Amino acid sequence: MVKDLRKISVLGMGLLGASITLRILRSLSNVKAFGYSHRASTRKKARQCGVADIIVDDMGKCVADADMVILATPICTFESIFEEIRPFLKEGCIVTDVGSVKQLPHKWGEKTFGKKIHYVGSHPIAGSEKRGVEFARDDLFVGSLCIMTKSAKTNAKALAVTKAFWEELGCKTSVMSPSEHDRTLASVSHVPHVTAAALMNATGEKEMKYAGKGLTDTTRVASGAPSVWMDILLTNPENTARGIDRVIRELTKFKTAVKNKNEKQIDKLLSKAKHDRDALINYKIKKKELF
Amino acid sequence: MVKDLRKISVLGMGLLGASITLRILRSLSNVKAFGYSHRASTRKKARQCGVADIIVDDMGKCVADADMVILATPICTFESIFEEIRPFLKEGCIVTDVGSVKQLPHKWGEKTFGKKIHYVGSHPIAGSEKRGVEFARDDLFVGSLCIMTKSAKTNAKALAVTKAFWEELGCKTSVMSPSEHDRTLASVSHVPHVTAAALMNATGEKEMKYAGKGLTDTTRVASGAPSVWMDILLTNPENTARGIDRVIRELTKFKTAVKNKNEKQIDKLLSKAKHDRDALINYKIKKKELF
Repeated sequence: MVKDLRKISVLGMGLLGASITLRILRSLSNVKAFGYSHRASTRKKARQCGVADIIVDDMGKCVADADMVILATPICTFESIFEEIRPFLKEGCIVTDVGSVKQLPHKWGEKTFGKKIHYVGSHPIAGSEKRGVEFARDDLFVGSLCIMTKSAKTNAKALAVTKAFWEELGCKTSVMSPSEHDRTLASVSHVPHVTAAALMNATGEKEMKYAGKGLTDTTRVASGAPSVWMDILLTNPENTARGIDRVIRELTKFKTAVKNKNEKQIDKLLSKAKHDRDALINYKIKKKELF
Repeated sequence: MVKDLRKISVLGMGLLGASITLRILRSLSNVKAFGYSHRASTRKKARQCGVADIIVDDMGKCVADADMVILATPICTFESIFEEIRPFLKEGCIVTDVGSVKQLPHKWGEKTFGKKIHYVGSHPIAGSEKRGVEFARDDLFVGSLCIMTKSAKTNAKALAVTKAFWEELGCKTSVMSPSEHDRTLASVSHVPHVTAAALMNATGEKEMKYAGKGLTDTTRVASGAPSVWMDILLTNPENTARGIDRVIRELTKFKTAVKNKNEKQIDKLLSKAKHDRDALINYKIKKKELF
Protein backbone atom coordinates (compact mmCIF):
# COMPACT_ATOMS: atom_id res chain seq x y z
CA MET A 1 0.00 0.00 0.00
CA VAL A 2 2.24 2.73 1.33
CA LYS A 3 5.12 1.31 -0.70
CA ASP A 4 3.44 2.57 -3.88
CA LEU A 5 3.92 6.12 -2.68
CA ARG A 6 7.05 7.80 -3.99
CA LYS A 7 6.31 11.48 -3.55
CA ILE A 8 4.07 13.05 -0.92
CA SER A 9 3.47 16.79 -1.00
CA VAL A 10 2.28 18.61 2.09
CA LEU A 11 0.75 22.06 1.68
CA GLY A 12 1.04 24.16 4.83
CA MET A 13 4.09 23.97 7.11
CA GLY A 14 2.42 24.56 10.47
CA LEU A 15 2.81 22.11 13.37
CA LEU A 16 0.72 19.40 11.67
CA GLY A 17 2.07 19.74 8.14
CA ALA A 18 5.71 19.92 9.22
CA SER A 19 5.26 16.98 11.62
CA ILE A 20 3.98 14.88 8.69
CA THR A 21 6.92 15.70 6.41
CA LEU A 22 9.38 15.21 9.28
CA ARG A 23 7.97 11.78 10.02
CA ILE A 24 8.13 10.78 6.32
CA LEU A 25 11.71 12.07 6.11
CA ARG A 26 12.78 10.01 9.10
CA SER A 27 10.70 6.84 8.75
CA LEU A 28 9.57 6.27 5.15
CA SER A 29 12.87 5.87 3.35
CA ASN A 30 11.31 5.24 -0.08
CA VAL A 31 9.14 8.36 -0.03
CA LYS A 32 10.22 11.91 -0.77
CA ALA A 33 8.50 14.55 1.38
CA PHE A 34 7.86 17.84 -0.39
CA GLY A 35 6.66 20.82 1.62
CA TYR A 36 5.08 24.13 0.64
CA SER A 37 3.99 27.24 2.49
CA HIS A 38 2.66 30.45 0.96
CA ARG A 39 4.76 32.44 3.42
CA ALA A 40 8.42 32.97 2.48
CA SER A 41 9.33 33.29 6.17
CA THR A 42 7.75 29.89 6.92
CA ARG A 43 9.53 28.25 3.99
CA LYS A 44 12.81 29.70 5.30
CA LYS A 45 12.13 28.34 8.81
CA ALA A 46 11.09 24.96 7.38
CA ARG A 47 14.38 24.76 5.46
CA GLN A 48 16.37 25.79 8.55
CA CYS A 49 14.60 23.15 10.67
CA GLY A 50 15.09 20.54 7.94
CA VAL A 51 11.56 19.19 8.25
CA ALA A 52 11.20 17.95 4.63
CA ASP A 53 13.30 16.60 1.77
CA ILE A 54 12.52 19.69 -0.27
CA ILE A 55 10.67 22.92 0.49
CA VAL A 56 9.25 24.28 -2.76
CA ASP A 57 8.48 27.96 -3.46
CA ASP A 58 5.66 27.21 -5.90
CA MET A 59 2.53 25.25 -5.02
CA GLY A 60 2.05 23.83 -8.55
CA LYS A 61 5.63 22.55 -8.66
CA CYS A 62 5.26 21.13 -5.18
CA VAL A 63 2.31 18.90 -6.11
CA ALA A 64 3.40 18.00 -9.66
CA ASP A 65 3.88 14.25 -10.03
CA ALA A 66 2.93 13.63 -6.38
CA ASP A 67 1.30 10.32 -5.43
CA MET A 68 -0.38 11.97 -2.47
CA VAL A 69 -1.09 15.60 -1.60
CA ILE A 70 -2.00 16.52 1.98
CA LEU A 71 -3.56 19.88 2.81
CA ALA A 72 -2.52 21.17 6.21
CA THR A 73 -3.92 24.67 5.77
CA PRO A 74 -7.12 26.24 7.15
CA ILE A 75 -10.27 24.45 5.95
CA CYS A 76 -11.61 27.64 4.37
CA THR A 77 -8.64 27.62 1.94
CA PHE A 78 -9.32 24.08 0.64
CA GLU A 79 -11.78 24.96 -2.12
CA SER A 80 -9.45 27.43 -3.83
CA ILE A 81 -6.34 25.27 -3.28
CA PHE A 82 -8.14 22.27 -4.83
CA GLU A 83 -8.84 24.38 -7.92
CA GLU A 84 -5.35 25.81 -8.01
CA ILE A 85 -3.55 22.45 -7.81
CA ARG A 86 -5.96 20.54 -10.09
CA PRO A 87 -4.05 21.21 -13.35
CA PHE A 88 -0.76 20.01 -11.84
CA LEU A 89 -1.95 16.68 -10.42
CA LYS A 90 -1.23 13.40 -12.15
CA GLU A 91 -3.92 10.79 -12.73
CA GLY A 92 -4.48 8.56 -9.72
CA CYS A 93 -3.11 11.12 -7.25
CA ILE A 94 -4.70 10.97 -3.80
CA VAL A 95 -5.64 14.30 -2.22
CA THR A 96 -6.35 14.37 1.49
CA ASP A 97 -6.14 16.88 4.35
CA VAL A 98 -5.94 17.18 8.14
CA GLY A 99 -8.96 19.41 8.67
CA SER A 100 -11.28 19.15 11.69
CA VAL A 101 -14.37 19.32 9.45
CA LYS A 102 -15.12 16.91 6.61
CA GLN A 103 -18.43 17.55 4.80
CA LEU A 104 -17.35 20.70 2.95
CA PRO A 105 -13.92 19.31 1.97
CA HIS A 106 -15.64 16.22 0.50
CA LYS A 107 -18.06 18.41 -1.42
CA TRP A 108 -15.29 20.65 -2.75
CA GLY A 109 -12.92 17.76 -3.50
CA GLU A 110 -15.47 15.63 -5.33
CA LYS A 111 -16.66 18.62 -7.35
CA THR A 112 -13.14 19.67 -8.38
CA PHE A 113 -11.34 16.39 -8.98
CA GLY A 114 -13.85 14.10 -10.67
CA LYS A 115 -12.91 10.43 -10.96
CA LYS A 116 -9.25 10.42 -11.94
CA ILE A 117 -7.93 12.16 -8.87
CA HIS A 118 -9.10 10.77 -5.55
CA TYR A 119 -10.16 12.89 -2.62
CA VAL A 120 -10.19 11.11 0.78
CA GLY A 121 -10.97 12.88 4.06
CA SER A 122 -8.58 12.53 7.00
CA HIS A 123 -8.75 14.02 10.45
CA PRO A 124 -5.85 13.08 12.67
CA ILE A 125 -6.92 14.12 16.19
CA ALA A 126 -3.49 15.30 17.28
CA GLY A 127 -1.95 18.63 18.01
CA SER A 128 -0.48 20.75 20.69
CA GLU A 129 -0.97 24.22 22.06
CA LYS A 130 2.41 24.96 20.44
CA ARG A 131 2.00 26.12 16.88
CA GLY A 132 4.44 26.48 13.99
CA VAL A 133 7.03 24.57 12.04
CA GLU A 134 9.64 24.95 14.79
CA PHE A 135 7.61 22.66 17.07
CA ALA A 136 7.31 19.85 14.49
CA ARG A 137 7.74 16.38 16.01
CA ASP A 138 8.09 13.12 14.14
CA ASP A 139 6.04 11.35 16.84
CA LEU A 140 3.15 13.84 16.95
CA PHE A 141 0.69 11.27 15.55
CA VAL A 142 1.85 8.22 17.46
CA GLY A 143 -1.05 6.66 19.37
CA SER A 144 -3.57 9.26 18.25
CA LEU A 145 -6.76 8.54 16.36
CA CYS A 146 -7.13 9.49 12.69
CA ILE A 147 -10.73 9.53 11.52
CA MET A 148 -10.97 8.78 7.80
CA THR A 149 -14.08 9.82 5.89
CA LYS A 150 -15.60 8.26 2.80
CA SER A 151 -18.67 9.09 0.78
CA ALA A 152 -20.39 7.07 -1.95
CA LYS A 153 -17.92 8.65 -4.38
CA THR A 154 -14.75 7.74 -2.49
CA ASN A 155 -12.33 5.45 -4.33
CA ALA A 156 -11.85 2.32 -2.21
CA LYS A 157 -8.19 1.83 -3.05
CA ALA A 158 -7.35 5.47 -2.37
CA LEU A 159 -9.06 5.16 1.01
CA ALA A 160 -7.08 2.00 1.81
CA VAL A 161 -3.76 3.61 0.84
CA THR A 162 -4.50 6.74 2.88
CA LYS A 163 -5.54 4.64 5.88
CA ALA A 164 -2.32 2.62 5.61
CA PHE A 165 -0.35 5.86 5.38
CA TRP A 166 -1.75 7.22 8.67
CA GLU A 167 -1.18 3.88 10.35
CA GLU A 168 2.43 4.03 9.16
CA LEU A 169 2.63 7.42 10.95
CA GLY A 170 1.52 5.75 14.19
CA CYS A 171 -2.21 6.52 14.15
CA LYS A 172 -5.11 4.27 14.94
CA THR A 173 -7.77 4.76 12.26
CA SER A 174 -11.54 4.75 12.12
CA VAL A 175 -13.73 5.25 9.02
CA MET A 176 -17.09 7.06 8.91
CA SER A 177 -19.16 9.26 6.62
CA PRO A 178 -18.40 12.99 6.41
CA SER A 179 -21.76 13.86 7.99
CA GLU A 180 -21.26 11.45 10.90
CA HIS A 181 -17.79 12.90 11.39
CA ASP A 182 -18.99 16.49 11.52
CA ARG A 183 -21.86 15.64 13.88
CA THR A 184 -19.54 13.66 16.16
CA LEU A 185 -16.76 16.23 16.23
CA ALA A 186 -19.23 19.06 16.85
CA SER A 187 -20.37 17.12 19.90
CA VAL A 188 -16.98 16.15 21.38
CA SER A 189 -14.86 19.08 20.26
CA HIS A 190 -16.49 22.11 18.65
CA VAL A 191 -19.33 22.49 21.16
CA PRO A 192 -17.03 21.93 24.20
CA HIS A 193 -14.79 24.67 22.81
CA VAL A 194 -17.68 27.11 22.45
CA THR A 195 -18.98 26.15 25.91
CA ALA A 196 -15.59 26.79 27.50
CA ALA A 197 -15.34 30.16 25.74
CA ALA A 198 -18.91 31.11 26.73
CA LEU A 199 -18.20 30.19 30.36
CA MET A 200 -15.06 32.31 30.29
CA ASN A 201 -16.97 35.24 28.80
CA ALA A 202 -19.63 34.86 31.51
CA THR A 203 -17.05 35.10 34.31
CA GLY A 204 -16.40 38.58 35.69
CA GLU A 205 -12.81 39.82 35.67
CA LYS A 206 -13.01 40.80 39.34
CA GLU A 207 -14.12 37.31 40.39
CA MET A 208 -11.54 35.51 38.28
CA LYS A 209 -8.74 35.89 40.79
CA TYR A 210 -10.60 33.62 43.22
CA ALA A 211 -10.75 30.82 40.65
CA GLY A 212 -9.45 27.39 41.53
CA LYS A 213 -8.66 24.40 39.36
CA GLY A 214 -12.38 24.01 38.51
CA LEU A 215 -12.59 27.13 36.35
CA THR A 216 -9.08 26.85 34.90
CA ASP A 217 -9.62 23.26 33.71
CA THR A 218 -13.15 23.87 32.46
CA THR A 219 -11.97 26.81 30.34
CA ARG A 220 -8.56 25.47 29.25
CA VAL A 221 -9.45 25.08 25.57
CA ALA A 222 -10.67 28.70 25.42
CA SER A 223 -6.98 29.67 25.23
CA GLY A 224 -6.86 28.12 21.74
CA ALA A 225 -6.11 30.34 18.74
CA PRO A 226 -9.29 32.18 17.62
CA SER A 227 -8.31 31.84 13.94
CA VAL A 228 -8.20 28.03 14.17
CA TRP A 229 -11.61 27.87 15.83
CA MET A 230 -13.14 30.47 13.56
CA ASP A 231 -12.16 28.23 10.63
CA ILE A 232 -13.87 25.23 12.27
CA LEU A 233 -17.03 27.05 13.36
CA LEU A 234 -17.52 28.65 9.94
CA THR A 235 -17.24 25.27 8.18
CA ASN A 236 -19.39 23.24 10.62
CA PRO A 237 -22.03 25.79 11.67
CA GLU A 238 -25.23 23.72 11.66
CA ASN A 239 -23.92 20.86 13.82
CA THR A 240 -22.27 23.31 16.19
CA ALA A 241 -25.41 25.44 16.54
CA ARG A 242 -27.50 22.32 17.24
CA GLY A 243 -24.95 21.17 19.83
CA ILE A 244 -24.97 24.59 21.52
CA ASP A 245 -28.75 24.26 21.74
CA ARG A 246 -28.39 20.90 23.52
CA VAL A 247 -26.05 22.49 26.09
CA ILE A 248 -28.46 25.40 26.58
CA ARG A 249 -31.30 22.91 27.17
CA GLU A 250 -29.24 21.02 29.76
CA LEU A 251 -28.23 24.28 31.47
CA THR A 252 -31.88 25.34 31.55
CA LYS A 253 -32.82 22.06 33.27
CA PHE A 254 -30.18 22.79 35.90
CA LYS A 255 -31.34 26.38 36.30
CA THR A 256 -34.95 25.36 36.86
CA ALA A 257 -34.00 22.57 39.27
CA VAL A 258 -31.67 24.84 41.26
CA LYS A 259 -34.16 27.73 41.41
CA ASN A 260 -36.86 25.36 42.67
CA LYS A 261 -34.44 23.57 45.00
CA ASN A 262 -35.68 20.37 43.38
CA GLU A 263 -33.37 17.86 45.09
CA LYS A 264 -34.52 14.88 43.08
CA GLN A 265 -33.94 16.60 39.75
CA ILE A 266 -30.59 18.13 40.77
CA ASP A 267 -29.43 14.70 41.90
CA LYS A 268 -30.59 13.15 38.64
CA LEU A 269 -28.70 15.72 36.55
CA LEU A 270 -25.51 15.61 38.63
CA SER A 271 -25.56 11.81 38.80
CA LYS A 272 -26.02 11.38 35.04
CA ALA A 273 -23.11 13.76 34.39
CA LYS A 274 -20.87 11.94 36.87
CA HIS A 275 -21.85 8.55 35.45
CA ASP A 276 -21.09 9.63 31.87
CA ARG A 277 -17.83 11.40 32.76
CA ASP A 278 -16.61 8.38 34.74
CA ALA A 279 -17.59 6.11 31.81
CA LEU A 280 -15.68 8.37 29.40
CA ILE A 281 -12.52 8.26 31.51
CA ASN A 282 -12.79 4.49 32.06
CA TYR A 283 -13.14 4.02 28.30
CA LYS A 284 -10.07 6.19 27.67
CA ILE A 285 -8.07 4.30 30.31
CA LYS A 286 -9.10 0.96 28.79
CA LYS A 287 -8.13 2.12 25.32
CA LYS A 288 -4.90 3.63 26.70
CA GLU A 289 -5.91 6.95 25.19
CA LEU A 290 -5.32 8.91 28.36
CA PHE A 291 -3.07 11.87 27.98
CA MET B 1 -3.77 35.23 68.65
CA VAL B 2 -3.58 31.51 67.93
CA LYS B 3 -1.72 31.01 71.19
CA ASP B 4 -4.95 31.77 73.11
CA LEU B 5 -6.48 28.63 71.61
CA ARG B 6 -6.20 25.56 73.83
CA LYS B 7 -8.90 23.28 72.48
CA ILE B 8 -10.19 23.15 68.92
CA SER B 9 -13.06 20.80 68.07
CA VAL B 10 -13.67 19.70 64.51
CA LEU B 11 -17.07 18.25 63.62
CA GLY B 12 -16.92 15.96 60.61
CA MET B 13 -13.95 13.71 59.92
CA GLY B 14 -13.92 13.80 56.11
CA LEU B 15 -10.85 14.83 54.13
CA LEU B 16 -11.07 18.48 55.21
CA GLY B 17 -11.96 17.95 58.87
CA ALA B 18 -9.36 15.25 59.43
CA SER B 19 -6.68 17.28 57.61
CA ILE B 20 -7.35 20.16 60.03
CA THR B 21 -7.04 18.04 63.18
CA LEU B 22 -3.96 16.27 61.76
CA ARG B 23 -2.26 19.60 61.11
CA ILE B 24 -3.10 20.86 64.61
CA LEU B 25 -1.80 17.62 66.11
CA ARG B 26 1.50 17.89 64.27
CA SER B 27 2.14 21.64 64.25
CA LEU B 28 0.28 23.43 67.04
CA SER B 29 1.82 21.88 70.13
CA ASN B 30 -0.21 23.97 72.62
CA VAL B 31 -3.58 23.09 71.10
CA LYS B 32 -5.56 19.91 71.61
CA ALA B 33 -7.44 18.73 68.51
CA PHE B 34 -10.78 17.05 69.23
CA GLY B 35 -12.61 15.29 66.44
CA TYR B 36 -16.20 14.09 66.06
CA SER B 37 -18.12 12.18 63.42
CA HIS B 38 -21.70 10.99 63.66
CA ARG B 39 -20.67 7.72 62.04
CA ALA B 40 -19.14 5.09 64.36
CA SER B 41 -17.21 3.60 61.41
CA THR B 42 -15.64 7.00 60.62
CA ARG B 43 -14.71 7.56 64.28
CA LYS B 44 -13.07 4.13 64.27
CA LYS B 45 -11.08 4.93 61.12
CA ALA B 46 -10.12 8.35 62.50
CA ARG B 47 -8.76 6.68 65.66
CA GLN B 48 -6.90 4.08 63.60
CA CYS B 49 -5.35 6.78 61.42
CA GLY B 50 -4.49 8.87 64.49
CA VAL B 51 -5.66 12.13 62.93
CA ALA B 52 -6.62 13.90 66.20
CA ASP B 53 -5.66 14.01 69.88
CA ILE B 54 -9.04 12.61 70.81
CA ILE B 55 -11.99 11.32 68.78
CA VAL B 56 -15.13 11.84 70.83
CA ASP B 57 -18.33 9.75 70.51
CA ASP B 58 -20.63 12.58 71.59
CA MET B 59 -20.92 15.93 69.79
CA GLY B 60 -21.80 17.89 72.96
CA LYS B 61 -18.77 16.51 74.82
CA CYS B 62 -16.58 17.16 71.80
CA VAL B 63 -17.34 20.90 71.75
CA ALA B 64 -17.59 21.48 75.54
CA ASP B 65 -14.98 23.98 76.71
CA ALA B 66 -13.61 24.41 73.16
CA ASP B 67 -12.04 27.75 72.20
CA MET B 68 -12.91 27.11 68.57
CA VAL B 69 -15.36 24.77 66.86
CA ILE B 70 -15.00 24.05 63.14
CA LEU B 71 -17.83 22.48 61.17
CA ALA B 72 -16.57 20.26 58.36
CA THR B 73 -19.93 18.69 57.57
CA PRO B 74 -22.37 19.41 54.69
CA ILE B 75 -23.66 23.00 54.72
CA CYS B 76 -27.26 21.81 54.99
CA THR B 77 -26.44 20.29 58.42
CA PHE B 78 -25.08 23.56 59.89
CA GLU B 79 -28.37 25.01 61.15
CA SER B 80 -29.27 21.97 63.24
CA ILE B 81 -25.69 21.42 64.45
CA PHE B 82 -25.48 25.07 65.58
CA GLU B 83 -28.64 24.52 67.65
CA GLU B 84 -27.45 21.20 68.97
CA ILE B 85 -24.04 22.43 70.16
CA ARG B 86 -25.22 25.82 71.45
CA PRO B 87 -25.89 24.65 75.07
CA PHE B 88 -22.41 23.10 75.33
CA LEU B 89 -20.36 26.08 74.14
CA LYS B 90 -18.50 28.30 76.55
CA GLU B 91 -18.70 32.10 76.36
CA GLY B 92 -16.28 33.57 73.82
CA CYS B 93 -16.08 30.38 71.80
CA ILE B 94 -15.49 30.91 68.07
CA VAL B 95 -17.59 28.81 65.71
CA THR B 96 -16.49 28.58 62.08
CA ASP B 97 -16.79 26.11 59.20
CA VAL B 98 -15.25 25.09 55.89
CA GLY B 99 -18.38 25.36 53.74
CA SER B 100 -18.34 26.54 50.12
CA VAL B 101 -21.33 28.82 50.74
CA LYS B 102 -21.42 31.60 53.35
CA GLN B 103 -24.68 33.61 53.44
CA LEU B 104 -26.86 30.92 55.00
CA PRO B 105 -24.23 29.85 57.57
CA HIS B 106 -23.89 33.51 58.67
CA LYS B 107 -27.66 33.84 58.96
CA TRP B 108 -27.98 30.61 60.94
CA GLY B 109 -24.92 31.28 63.13
CA GLU B 110 -25.88 34.84 64.02
CA LYS B 111 -29.45 33.79 64.81
CA THR B 112 -28.39 30.88 67.02
CA PHE B 113 -25.38 32.20 68.90
CA GLY B 114 -26.14 35.84 69.72
CA LYS B 115 -23.25 37.94 71.02
CA LYS B 116 -21.38 35.72 73.45
CA ILE B 117 -20.43 33.05 70.98
CA HIS B 118 -18.82 34.25 67.77
CA TYR B 119 -19.64 32.88 64.37
CA VAL B 120 -17.04 33.60 61.65
CA GLY B 121 -17.28 32.25 58.11
CA SER B 122 -14.32 30.44 56.58
CA HIS B 123 -13.95 28.85 53.17
CA PRO B 124 -10.56 27.24 52.60
CA ILE B 125 -10.39 26.58 48.85
CA ALA B 126 -8.61 23.27 49.13
CA GLY B 127 -9.53 19.70 48.57
CA SER B 128 -8.87 16.71 46.46
CA GLU B 129 -10.88 14.23 44.43
CA LYS B 130 -9.95 11.77 47.19
CA ARG B 131 -12.48 11.80 49.99
CA GLY B 132 -12.44 10.45 53.50
CA VAL B 133 -10.40 10.49 56.70
CA GLU B 134 -7.85 8.02 55.31
CA PHE B 135 -6.64 10.63 52.80
CA ALA B 136 -6.07 13.34 55.46
CA ARG B 137 -2.87 15.33 54.89
CA ASP B 138 -1.31 17.82 57.28
CA ASP B 139 -0.27 19.99 54.30
CA LEU B 140 -3.65 20.04 52.54
CA PHE B 141 -4.09 23.77 53.16
CA VAL B 142 -0.54 24.93 52.48
CA GLY B 143 -0.51 27.63 49.81
CA SER B 144 -4.26 27.58 49.28
CA LEU B 145 -6.57 30.53 49.74
CA CYS B 146 -8.98 30.72 52.66
CA ILE B 147 -11.76 33.27 52.16
CA MET B 148 -12.99 34.62 55.49
CA THR B 149 -16.41 36.23 55.66
CA LYS B 150 -17.67 38.91 58.01
CA SER B 151 -20.97 40.67 58.36
CA ALA B 152 -21.86 43.77 60.39
CA LYS B 153 -22.41 41.42 63.33
CA THR B 154 -19.04 39.67 63.17
CA ASN B 155 -16.81 40.05 66.22
CA ALA B 156 -13.55 41.69 65.09
CA LYS B 157 -11.32 39.79 67.50
CA ALA B 158 -12.90 36.43 66.63
CA LEU B 159 -12.32 37.19 62.94
CA ALA B 160 -8.67 38.08 63.62
CA VAL B 161 -8.09 34.88 65.63
CA THR B 162 -9.73 32.72 62.96
CA LYS B 163 -7.72 34.42 60.22
CA ALA B 164 -4.49 33.84 62.17
CA PHE B 165 -5.51 30.19 62.67
CA TRP B 166 -5.87 29.56 58.91
CA GLU B 167 -2.60 31.34 58.24
CA GLU B 168 -0.97 29.04 60.81
CA LEU B 169 -2.31 26.13 58.73
CA GLY B 170 -0.51 27.53 55.68
CA CYS B 171 -3.36 29.41 53.98
CA LYS B 172 -3.34 32.83 52.41
CA THR B 173 -6.45 34.68 53.58
CA SER B 174 -8.84 37.20 52.11
CA VAL B 175 -11.85 38.81 53.83
CA MET B 176 -15.17 39.70 52.19
CA SER B 177 -18.90 39.86 52.94
CA PRO B 178 -20.96 36.65 52.80
CA SER B 179 -22.94 37.95 49.82
CA GLU B 180 -19.80 38.89 47.88
CA HIS B 181 -18.39 35.45 48.68
CA ASP B 182 -21.44 33.59 47.42
CA ARG B 183 -21.65 35.70 44.26
CA THR B 184 -17.94 35.21 43.57
CA LEU B 185 -17.90 31.48 44.24
CA ALA B 186 -21.02 30.94 42.15
CA SER B 187 -19.15 32.58 39.30
CA VAL B 188 -15.79 30.80 39.60
CA SER B 189 -16.87 27.44 40.99
CA HIS B 190 -20.58 26.58 41.21
CA VAL B 191 -21.51 27.73 37.69
CA PRO B 192 -18.43 26.11 36.07
CA HIS B 193 -19.44 22.86 37.79
CA VAL B 194 -22.99 23.05 36.46
CA THR B 195 -21.70 24.01 32.99
CA ALA B 196 -19.34 21.03 32.90
CA ALA B 197 -22.17 18.72 34.00
CA ALA B 198 -24.59 20.20 31.44
CA LEU B 199 -22.00 19.78 28.66
CA MET B 200 -21.48 16.16 29.69
CA ASN B 201 -25.24 15.55 29.70
CA ALA B 202 -25.48 17.11 26.23
CA THR B 203 -22.85 14.76 24.81
CA GLY B 204 -24.15 11.55 23.25
CA GLU B 205 -22.73 8.27 24.57
CA LYS B 206 -21.95 7.07 21.05
CA GLU B 207 -19.90 10.16 20.25
CA MET B 208 -18.01 10.14 23.54
CA LYS B 209 -15.46 7.59 22.43
CA TYR B 210 -14.08 10.06 19.88
CA ALA B 211 -13.43 12.65 22.58
CA GLY B 212 -9.98 14.13 22.96
CA LYS B 213 -8.44 16.19 25.73
CA GLY B 214 -10.86 19.06 24.99
CA LEU B 215 -13.96 17.30 26.28
CA THR B 216 -12.22 15.42 29.10
CA ASP B 217 -10.68 18.61 30.55
CA THR B 218 -13.81 20.71 30.06
CA THR B 219 -15.91 18.15 31.93
CA ARG B 220 -13.36 17.06 34.60
CA VAL B 221 -15.22 18.57 37.54
CA ALA B 222 -18.43 16.76 36.52
CA SER B 223 -16.88 13.65 38.10
CA GLY B 224 -17.27 15.30 41.52
CA ALA B 225 -19.53 13.71 44.12
CA PRO B 226 -23.18 14.64 43.45
CA SER B 227 -23.92 14.90 47.20
CA VAL B 228 -21.23 17.57 47.69
CA TRP B 229 -22.54 19.65 44.78
CA MET B 230 -26.18 19.13 45.71
CA ASP B 231 -25.33 20.64 49.11
CA ILE B 232 -23.72 23.68 47.45
CA LEU B 233 -26.42 24.23 44.82
CA LEU B 234 -29.23 23.99 47.38
CA THR B 235 -27.58 26.59 49.62
CA ASN B 236 -26.51 29.05 46.89
CA PRO B 237 -29.39 28.76 44.42
CA GLU B 238 -30.02 32.39 43.40
CA ASN B 239 -26.41 33.23 42.55
CA THR B 240 -25.99 29.94 40.72
CA ALA B 241 -29.19 30.40 38.70
CA ARG B 242 -28.14 33.93 37.74
CA GLY B 243 -24.70 32.64 36.71
CA ILE B 244 -26.24 29.87 34.62
CA ASP B 245 -28.28 32.57 32.86
CA ARG B 246 -25.09 34.48 32.03
CA VAL B 247 -23.60 31.33 30.46
CA ILE B 248 -26.81 30.71 28.49
CA ARG B 249 -26.67 34.30 27.20
CA GLU B 250 -23.05 33.87 26.09
CA LEU B 251 -23.86 30.53 24.44
CA THR B 252 -26.78 32.15 22.64
CA LYS B 253 -24.46 34.87 21.29
CA PHE B 254 -22.19 32.14 19.94
CA LYS B 255 -25.11 30.21 18.46
CA THR B 256 -26.44 33.26 16.61
CA ALA B 257 -22.98 34.25 15.36
CA VAL B 258 -22.19 30.69 14.18
CA LYS B 259 -25.57 30.21 12.50
CA ASN B 260 -25.15 33.52 10.64
CA LYS B 261 -21.48 32.81 9.91
CA ASN B 262 -20.84 36.25 11.38
CA GLU B 263 -17.04 36.27 11.28
CA LYS B 264 -16.63 39.57 13.07
CA GLN B 265 -18.82 38.50 15.99
CA ILE B 266 -17.31 34.97 16.24
CA ASP B 267 -13.84 36.54 16.32
CA LYS B 268 -14.92 39.00 19.01
CA LEU B 269 -16.34 36.23 21.22
CA LEU B 270 -13.41 33.84 20.75
CA SER B 271 -10.86 36.61 21.23
CA LYS B 272 -12.45 37.90 24.45
CA ALA B 273 -12.50 34.35 25.85
CA LYS B 274 -8.86 33.78 24.91
CA HIS B 275 -7.83 37.15 26.35
CA ASP B 276 -9.58 36.48 29.67
CA ARG B 277 -8.36 32.87 29.95
CA ASP B 278 -4.78 33.94 29.24
CA ALA B 279 -5.12 36.75 31.81
CA LEU B 280 -6.46 34.26 34.37
CA ILE B 281 -3.52 31.90 33.85
CA ASN B 282 -0.97 34.74 33.91
CA TYR B 283 -2.47 35.96 37.19
CA LYS B 284 -2.26 32.45 38.67
CA ILE B 285 1.35 32.05 37.50
CA LYS B 286 2.28 35.44 38.99
CA LYS B 287 0.63 34.56 42.29
CA LYS B 288 2.22 31.09 42.18
CA GLU B 289 -1.24 29.58 42.52
CA LEU B 290 -0.81 27.19 39.61
CA PHE B 291 -1.50 23.61 40.39
